[in-house]
Amino acid sequence: MAKFMDVHSGFFGVSAEQLREAHERDLEIQATEGVVFERAWLDPDAGKVFCLATGPSREAVMRIHDRAGHPTPEVYELPIEV
Amino acid sequence: MAKFMDVHSGFFGVSAEQLREAHERDLEIQATEGVVFERAWLDPDAGKVFCLATGPSREAVMRIHDRAGHPTPEVYELPIEV
Repeated sequence: MAKFMDVHSGFFGVSAEQLREAHERDLEIQATEGVVFERAWLDPDAGKVFCLATGPSREAVMRIHDRAGHPTPEVYELPIEV
Repeated sequence: MAKFMDVHSGFFGVSAEQLREAHERDLEIQATEGVVFERAWLDPDAGKVFCLATGPSREAVMRIHDRAGHPTPEVYELPIEV
């Protein structure tokens, strides 16, 4: 299993409740791809969301986000952590 | 205290040891601005580094990175976490 950070743009003014609902759609289907989302953080002024996840591949993480309705091309694999 | 994610670009092919050395320069001076870096992750293929920190302001985090020799304009405040 590898670790991944994905970045979503355009989430301007999104509330905690809206982020929770959006992320809940990822959590409901994550097991189908062997992905586990650990955390999601939002900067509502910059419209950025960062999700930290573990999973078998970058593509698996992208498929979950695609199917949950918030696709992003920005999924980074993180083999190095300090 | 607020939470922040900063993103650095151009760290292509950087090793764990090099990331540790670079991050150590942040850790040595972080207290002068009241910043605490929690974690740093690297994607050496995409050249991206993500740092999670707490601190008094976005500017304080940016000043630490400036002084440590790896400035970035991409510092996001994260008031919402799920």
